[in-house]
Amino acid sequence: MGTPLDDAALDTIFRSARTYNGYLDTPVREADVRAIYDLVKMGPTSANQQPARFVWCLDQSARDRLADCASDKNADKIRKAPAAVVIGMDEDFHEQLPWLFPHTDAKSWFDGDAEGRKVSAFRNGSLQGAYFIIAARALGWDTGPMSGFDAEKVNAAFFADRPKVKVNFISTLGKGDPATIFARSPRPDFEVFNRIA
Amino acid sequence: MGTPLDDAALDTIFRSARTYNGYLDTPVREADVRAIYDLVKMGPTSANQQPARFVWCLDQSARDRLADCASDKNADKIRKAPAAVVIGMDEDFHEQLPWLFPHTDAKSWFDGDAEGRKVSAFRNGSLQGAYFIIAARALGWDTGPMSGFDAEKVNAAFFADRPKVKVNFISTLGKGDPATIFARSPRPDFEVFNRIA
Repeated sequence: MGTPLDDAALDTIFRSARTYNGYLDTPVREADVRAIYDLVKMGPTSANQQPARFVWCLDQSARDRLADCASDKNADKIRKAPAAVVIGMDEDFHEQLPWLFPHTDAKSWFDGDAEGRKVSAFRNGSLQGAYFIIAARALGWDTGPMSGFDAEKVNAAFFADRPKVKVNFISTLGKGDPATIFARSPRPDFEVFNRIA
Repeated sequence: MGTPLDDAALDTIFRSARTYNGYLDTPVREADVRAIYDLVKMGPTSANQQPARFVWCLDQSARDRLADCASDKNADKIRKAPAAVVIGMDEDFHEQLPWLFPHTDAKSWFDGDAEGRKVSAFRNGSLQGAYFIIAARALGWDTGPMSGFDAEKVNAAFFADRPKVKVNFISTLGKGDPATIFARSPRPDFEVFNRIA
C-alpha cells in the first residue's frame, strides 16, 4: 500500500515503454546491472525461491558468444546492443531454501521432486524475468527480451559448469533508440481475456 | 528510456512492497481491476501472445469457490480478502495471434506444436502474472500470490468452459494490513546468483 505512481512513472514502466531492436551508444556498466538486480531480488517468488540466475554480458566477447546461439535477426541485435542478459533458472533452487526461507523446512517440499522443481523454477524464474524488465525500465533503461535462440547452445556457452541451470529467455539492455521500433502491436480490451466473478 | 522512477515509486513497486496475508476492509471494485489490467496488457510478451486469462473474484461467492480449491491456510486468506484473482493461461493463445500480431503469420509458428504452446503460454503467462503484481502495487494495491491449491479443482471451477485455459497461480488483492506480515525473507547479494561476462 505504497504511494501510487504518478502518470510519468506508469508511462516509464508500462505505458510508453517498448521492446527495443536497437540502442544508443550509452554503455551499461557493472554498477547499473547491480542496481537493477537490487530491485529484481525484492520481487516476490514462491517461498522466496529466487530461482533466476543472471549472466550480464557487458563485454563484446560475451555478447558475441550469446549472438552465436541466437537466430540471425536476434544475433545482430545482440552483437550491437550495449549489453545483453541471459536469464537462467536453477532447477536445484531448493538447495538454497534453508537460508532463503529459513523459518521452515521448505527444501523438503522439493527433495526428490525433480518435475515439481522444474515447474516452480520456470514459473518463478519467469516472474523474476518480468521483474528484470520492469526494474530496468524503472531505472531509465530499455530491454529487448527474446526467445529466438538455441537453448542447448546457450546452456553450453554460459552454464556448462552448472548443469541444473537452464536458460529461460535472453534480452538486450541499454538506452533504446526510438528509430529502431515499429508501431505497437494491438492491446486487448478488458472483455477479451478477463472475467469478473 | 522514460523518466527514471523516484525513491518513493521504487519503494512502492519493489522495495517496501510485501506479499500480504490479510487486508484492510477497503473494497476492490470493477473499475480498480480494469485499471490494473490496462497496465498489465502493456507489458511485453513474445510476439504479443498475451496468453494470460484473468478471473477477478470480487464477489464473496467467487472467493468462496476459489477458497474451496486451496490449501487450508490459503483458503482462509482467500475467503477474507477483499478480492482474489485466478491467473490462467491459454494454451491455444496462438488462435489470437492473427489480430494480436498482425504483421506476420505468427499463428503458423505454433500450429501443430502443442508442447511449444504450453511452454510459451507458461513463460509469457508468468511474465503477465508478474506484471499483475507490479501493476497492482503501482496503483496502490497489494497482492498475496500463492501456489498452494489444487489446479484441477481450480480449472474445473473457473475454466470448465475453456479446456485449453489452465490456472498458473492465484492471488489475493486489496489494501494490505501491515499487522498480517512477518519479517521479510533474506535477499541474496549480487554475487550469489549473478555473473558478469
